[in-house]
Amino acid sequence: MTAPFPGARAAGDGTHSATADADRTDAEHADANYHLVGAPLDATTTFQPGTRFGPDRVRRFAGTFDDYDRRTDSSFSEAAVLDGGNVRAWNDVPAYLDHLTAELRAAVIDEAVPLTIGGEHTVTRAGVRATEPDVLVVLDAHLDLRDEYDGNPLSHACVVRRCLDGLGGSDHPTVDEVVVVGARTGSREEWERSESEDVTVVPPENAGEWSDHVPDLDGRDVYLSVDIDGADPGFAPGTGTMEPFGLHPREMRDVVRGVAPHCVGFDVVEVNDRDDGQAASLAGKLLLEFVFEHAASGRD
Amino acid sequence: MTAPFPGARAAGDGTHSATADADRTDAEHADANYHLVGAPLDATTTFQPGTRFGPDRVRRFAGTFDDYDRRTDSSFSEAAVLDGGNVRAWNDVPAYLDHLTAELRAAVIDEAVPLTIGGEHTVTRAGVRATEPDVLVVLDAHLDLRDEYDGNPLSHACVVRRCLDGLGGSDHPTVDEVVVVGARTGSREEWERSESEDVTVVPPENAGEWSDHVPDLDGRDVYLSVDIDGADPGFAPGTGTMEPFGLHPREMRDVVRGVAPHCVGFDVVEVNDRDDGQAASLAGKLLLEFVFEHAASGRD
Amino acid sequence: MTAPFPGARAAGDGTHSATADADRTDAEHADANYHLVGAPLDATTTFQPGTRFGPDRVRRFAGTFDDYDRRTDSSFSEAAVLDGGNVRAWNDVPAYLDHLTAELRAAVIDEAVPLTIGGEHTVTRAGVRATEPDVLVVLDAHLDLRDEYDGNPLSHACVVRRCLDGLGGSDHPTVDEVVVVGARTGSREEWERSESEDVTVVPPENAGEWSDHVPDLDGRDVYLSVDIDGADPGFAPGTGTMEPFGLHPREMRDVVRGVAPHCVGFDVVEVNDRDDGQAASLAGKLLLEFVFEHAASGRD
Amino acid sequence: MTAPFPGARAAGDGTHSATADADRTDAEHADANYHLVGAPLDATTTFQPGTRFGPDRVRRFAGTFDDYDRRTDSSFSEAAVLDGGNVRAWNDVPAYLDHLTAELRAAVIDEAVPLTIGGEHTVTRAGVRATEPDVLVVLDAHLDLRDEYDGNPLSHACVVRRCLDGLGGSDHPTVDEVVVVGARTGSREEWERSESEDVTVVPPENAGEWSDHVPDLDGRDVYLSVDIDGADPGFAPGTGTMEPFGLHPREMRDVVRGVAPHCVGFDVVEVNDRDDGQAASLAGKLLLEFVFEHAASGRD
Amino acid sequence: MTAPFPGARAAGDGTHSATADADRTDAEHADANYHLVGAPLDATTTFQPGTRFGPDRVRRFAGTFDDYDRRTDSSFSEAAVLDGGNVRAWNDVPAYLDHLTAELRAAVIDEAVPLTIGGEHTVTRAGVRATEPDVLVVLDAHLDLRDEYDGNPLSHACVVRRCLDGLGGSDHPTVDEVVVVGARTGSREEWERSESEDVTVVPPENAGEWSDHVPDLDGRDVYLSVDIDGADPGFAPGTGTMEPFGLHPREMRDVVRGVAPHCVGFDVVEVNDRDDGQAASLAGKLLLEFVFEHAASGRD
Amino acid sequence: MTAPFPGARAAGDGTHSATADADRTDAEHADANYHLVGAPLDATTTFQPGTRFGPDRVRRFAGTFDDYDRRTDSSFSEAAVLDGGNVRAWNDVPAYLDHLTAELRAAVIDEAVPLTIGGEHTVTRAGVRATEPDVLVVLDAHLDLRDEYDGNPLSHACVVRRCLDGLGGSDHPTVDEVVVVGARTGSREEWERSESEDVTVVPPENAGEWSDHVPDLDGRDVYLSVDIDGADPGFAPGTGTMEPFGLHPREMRDVVRGVAPHCVGFDVVEVNDRDDGQAASLAGKLLLEFVFEHAASGRD
Repeated sequence: MTAPFPGARAAGDGTHSATADADRTDAEHADANYHLVGAPLDATTTFQPGTRFGPDRVRRFAGTFDDYDRRTDSSFSEAAVLDGGNVRAWNDVPAYLDHLTAELRAAVIDEAVPLTIGGEHTVTRAGVRATEPDVLVVLDAHLDLRDEYDGNPLSHACVVRRCLDGLGGSDHPTVDEVVVVGARTGSREEWERSESEDVTVVPPENAGEWSDHVPDLDGRDVYLSVDIDGADPGFAPGTGTMEPFGLHPREMRDVVRGVAPHCVGFDVVEVNDRDDGQAASLAGKLLLEFVFEHAASGRD
Repeated sequence: MTAPFPGARAAGDGTHSATADADRTDAEHADANYHLVGAPLDATTTFQPGTRFGPDRVRRFAGTFDDYDRRTDSSFSEAAVLDGGNVRAWNDVPAYLDHLTAELRAAVIDEAVPLTIGGEHTVTRAGVRATEPDVLVVLDAHLDLRDEYDGNPLSHACVVRRCLDGLGGSDHPTVDEVVVVGARTGSREEWERSESEDVTVVPPENAGEWSDHVPDLDGRDVYLSVDIDGADPGFAPGTGTMEPFGLHPREMRDVVRGVAPHCVGFDVVEVNDRDDGQAASLAGKLLLEFVFEHAASGRD
Repeated sequence: MTAPFPGARAAGDGTHSATADADRTDAEHADANYHLVGAPLDATTTFQPGTRFGPDRVRRFAGTFDDYDRRTDSSFSEAAVLDGGNVRAWNDVPAYLDHLTAELRAAVIDEAVPLTIGGEHTVTRAGVRATEPDVLVVLDAHLDLRDEYDGNPLSHACVVRRCLDGLGGSDHPTVDEVVVVGARTGSREEWERSESEDVTVVPPENAGEWSDHVPDLDGRDVYLSVDIDGADPGFAPGTGTMEPFGLHPREMRDVVRGVAPHCVGFDVVEVNDRDDGQAASLAGKLLLEFVFEHAASGRD
Repeated sequence: MTAPFPGARAAGDGTHSATADADRTDAEHADANYHLVGAPLDATTTFQPGTRFGPDRVRRFAGTFDDYDRRTDSSFSEAAVLDGGNVRAWNDVPAYLDHLTAELRAAVIDEAVPLTIGGEHTVTRAGVRATEPDVLVVLDAHLDLRDEYDGNPLSHACVVRRCLDGLGGSDHPTVDEVVVVGARTGSREEWERSESEDVTVVPPENAGEWSDHVPDLDGRDVYLSVDIDGADPGFAPGTGTMEPFGLHPREMRDVVRGVAPHCVGFDVVEVNDRDDGQAASLAGKLLLEFVFEHAASGRD
Repeated sequence: MTAPFPGARAAGDGTHSATADADRTDAEHADANYHLVGAPLDATTTFQPGTRFGPDRVRRFAGTFDDYDRRTDSSFSEAAVLDGGNVRAWNDVPAYLDHLTAELRAAVIDEAVPLTIGGEHTVTRAGVRATEPDVLVVLDAHLDLRDEYDGNPLSHACVVRRCLDGLGGSDHPTVDEVVVVGARTGSREEWERSESEDVTVVPPENAGEWSDHVPDLDGRDVYLSVDIDGADPGFAPGTGTMEPFGLHPREMRDVVRGVAPHCVGFDVVEVNDRDDGQAASLAGKLLLEFVFEHAASGRD
Repeated sequence: MTAPFPGARAAGDGTHSATADADRTDAEHADANYHLVGAPLDATTTFQPGTRFGPDRVRRFAGTFDDYDRRTDSSFSEAAVLDGGNVRAWNDVPAYLDHLTAELRAAVIDEAVPLTIGGEHTVTRAGVRATEPDVLVVLDAHLDLRDEYDGNPLSHACVVRRCLDGLGGSDHPTVDEVVVVGARTGSREEWERSESEDVTVVPPENAGEWSDHVPDLDGRDVYLSVDIDGADPGFAPGTGTMEPFGLHPREMRDVVRGVAPHCVGFDVVEVNDRDDGQAASLAGKLLLEFVFEHAASGRD
């Protein structure tokens, strides 16, 4: 168990095991609109590790945020967010993703929108499997379109590819389309894959314009994943792989606001503890912005 | 005693006590245009403490700044700033504010403009009481318009409210009008209070425009208070409560330049030691900008 | 010896001595287009020391960057960069500069473009002496036009002046013209020196415009020096002297891209280890941008 | 609510209010032998603040400890420790101490031994009021025997004095005797007070000998308070006021083991977040040692 | 490739691949008495990650050590240590251990003593497989005798067990006996396993005495593994799991000196980058002590 | 100017220039028994720089110490210590040492004992020149007996040699004898020099015994220099070159107490800002111990 997100209610005793779902009391879940979990996976980080501390760090720095949002005239604590604590991670990534998927799927069955705080980006695969969206929108410095990394097809550097193309014989659901906003780097192979019709890359320079006119999402189910390294390192140094020339916080916020009304699921990932709180503050605030906008849009 | 601000002269032996004013040598104060003090109050910080280290940290990081300012063709050391050291803080906030007010009032009597380096934002109350301005302009992420916080009406989160509405039976002077530039968060009650005619809220997005056309200040006495958390956390992580989507340093600078000619007092507050010097550098530089612009405008 | 820059080949056994050049195998140098060395000089830093750790820190944080660059459709590892390791520094600055000049001159003789990672800004003097450019373009917060600092004419604060005016009886080559982009501070004497015809100062506010229309460089040999403190401290806190109101990373990148095709040499300097990697990441990325653009322009 | 101490069960929903006691379910408290709370008071710290983060930090670093203890052949999770979360602190110290006393008193009524993680040392006053011991044993660098500090009789620097002499008209219980182990500093007045018969000072050099022959405690109720600054700063730099020449961890452990069998209450205080985890690790381990020894002695 | 250990020669181009052995030049290996590699595995760390940075950090902090050792009147650079750089790690632990074993085995074939800098403790398994000792002596806070951890039999917490009992159907060599010096914690199952005749546990309190009379090692091949967490956290906070009440540096040194003459292999592991250099300095110095003593004893 | 040492009086306006001595008011110096200056030289540090921040950091962390000392029943503020601020350092080491010597010599002329806070160890040369002792006692990890380092005979690594053998044609006074307590490392040449009759090396293991029976100092003038790296790195990580297996704080204290009564001068050096305050706390406390013991012995 861990401390719940500020303004959220804590779920049960916070213990998560393979059989935890059966133990949930119906009452506490019935009226939740959002089900938040931490997914502190830190298995495939390439450079600076520490995403295992991400969920608790985001919760901690979110403790300073006002509950009330002026723009939507609503409060986070009234948005009915249930914090189920952290889904404890271990190093068997496929098994962990299965377990996390089940947890998030339970939220969907309860008609709640799953919100995940990573953990490495790999956990997005669980969010997508649980919510089965049509479109995946990602805020990210990297394309994450590799087919494998260090021989591992479930690396954080492959997560968008997995959501698009699946994993060999696996029958897990995949999305029809991906939009990567803020992407500024990738291997040659990733850039080639990005030229297909089912991938749209919005460079940082165009993110503002894109969020002003979010195209083509009406009537489609969207999953929004925020990799905090989409931000310029000046705003989020506490992440595994810093990539300069990135998004500014207001640009990220505008994308979140623009996409949120279409969303069936959300995550924010790749925050670690190697800065002075900048990355965690930004991540926590973007999660609040998602909830405020999504709730105001009446989607749930 | 503490090291004086770079470029400033040190006052006396730096010891501050309730009777210190009587001991001042007239000579050293007579020709000072600005009287700077540190006010390391750190009593009501809600999240990350450390503002007690703020004044010395700002002085330290200001040691790298050039004395000369090209734009105004003037130098800081010629601006006649007297650094009176820190007014040692203790936890009885009302008593401390009285003491600090007396210290700043002495500067006013000497026809110097008081400059305060916090410490928590609460110390602005002393600056306002000492200078009795018509208008209070605040750079801040938060409205600070609460009537009380944790039962305490003298919390840093209430300071703008106190300057506007006073404190019950107290006959301390209050301002006629408040402008909060860069504000992006507050409780429902604070936002409601902000809708009165005597409060203007300029969101971060509009700060640039506002500073281009600083309205309505001619002929009125203004006190300018810079809460460093008005900046985006990327530029000032070393502060008690980070709030993303904030002002950029050049935006803050332009507000300072625009308002300074109208000012009877100035402070910069809420810097702590929990970053790599970003917050202290920015705070120190904004203080320099204030002095350069104010001196050039010939107000003093 | 030290770890080579990611994507670069390591040269020899990495040992550098006054006679090292004679020992180099012709083969490994013959096909290198760029010769990179670290120059960890940390002798005259005024405020926060640590530039001695700069070269290795930049290499370390560059380990996260993709080898492939989409814009130029090229890869760093194909650019034929040879990393000669660090040229070990000691405190006799004139002797060290002579030694470093010889090292960089050897690169020039081999028809490679020398790339230097500082170390303090002083090392730029060696780069200029080795490449004998017509124009020096500097990204920097400071003018660095002092004639001496603390009695030392070879201080980092004098480096641009030395490149322009030389050093008394010395017959070292000097440049015809200097452009300082992002400069926002200096002493009165520096600003006066900057008014001569051979100096152009581009304030941070105008850097974008300047890089859109890089003037007058055609047909002239340019040396580009990036002092990381040209960036706003929010983006590069790990440097000796932070100066707010600086350049944003994309602005610096655009200057690098605009100037690179004209360049005969490049350095990035003044990175230390006093932040969470922001300065080193930005420095490393700007070096990559230089190589990608320079190689694509076909200059070498 | 906060994450429970590793191996402890979490109590209720972790919310603490003035009326919380009434809401406790009898069941979960009935079978607890130890009732742990965090008391993150951070109001009167003289030098380096941050004790507000102490309880959560101790819990976090305790996550690495084995549940099983070889010496006593027992496990922490079987010791029936109930973690009631943090008793949220505010700046009205007298009111907070009353509230905390009530919380700890509830544990005593439930026949559980209260365990408190500070927070500043002031919270020991609540532990003593709740348990009404005959003797107070303190591990501390300082005597904490001041009658007031900065005019405040409830400062952390006065806590031992308050437990010994009470507070003027107050009828709160006081102890008959105090032993301060590891004390090495104090004001002249404190040392004079320490010469009375009811105070024993054991300097760091004699702590080993003292713990080998814990005197005179048989049949008396003891409260043990561990101020982490009793340790030499090399072992616990993360505390408000470092005092060299202190205790080594094994010496502190031996005192805890020697005194624990006589105890009716325990706390460990003055841990902050300004080190790399040394202070929190040591504090957490000493708490485990207390529980293992106390449980093995069959006192509860 | 990475920078070689100070005083060591660098091997080849530092690139390690599965076929690297074939490429080695015979000359440079023929006269090496010790072959050092970094093994930055960071896959199963339970609490604070960062052992991936351990090898380079140890090398860096070892840069301050004198080459000459007075006690043995010898110098490190004359001990003929070849630094083969880091064996780049990935997350497939069994495959990585096979690869690392082959690398270390090559050293043995060249009649050099393999020295490994971790990385997590798991890498000791490779050292033992490569050297096939009779006895494994471990300096460690933990028994590391678990049969599995999180379902993983190749976790760092199982490494001593693996060396003792192997891994199911695997025919990898195991040791006859294990001595764990400084151990102070473990699960009930580990302590039970430790009671067998083939395990000796020397608690921290007895380490001094044990090293004075290193028993029973004459004529037997020993592998010595130093887990830096054997030290008290005050001396080595930069490690995955701090455990108070540990060894003092001189105690660890005396064990190293006592055991070194009997050794066929050595490693020092579990150093990360989460402190101010204490752990890396101690680790590097213990490696030097091993080499000085081993070389002086004439074993190689 | 800088903040004076806690308990000390500040001298003049804290400005130091080559002619400052002439400006001192006789009154404030006449009754001082100790004259303290900071000497923030940071020019020849080999590994981790930052000694320039040492004096102010020691003063800051000394702010937590009690003024009263029980053992000697005296208080620091009554010991008549005058803090002359920092003697600003620049990179011309010979010139700086001349200047610092003059400053310290002025203290001697005023019949005060000079106390210096470094800065790198090189500054001890000034202390010895100013006080002309018979014997130099040094607490240090290193012998500092090199004849030159990087070609520089005034490096911190040569300071003991300079005090013993002088510098070529220079007629500066030298000592008759040197005792290095805690030394554990040096080059072969240094160890050979240490075998002369005029050098005594007391290894860390024998420091306790040595301080119990301080030999041969009666009737001789002694200068005591404390290099903080004499301590084990666990107790003082914030120093340029960490050397494990060092002194414990109580051992250093006992040497200081034993030697102080014989002293004509004292310094504590090599503290930087790269730890959490351990080195500065220890340094400050040792300075207090020196003053308490020296004053009690009635030497001055």
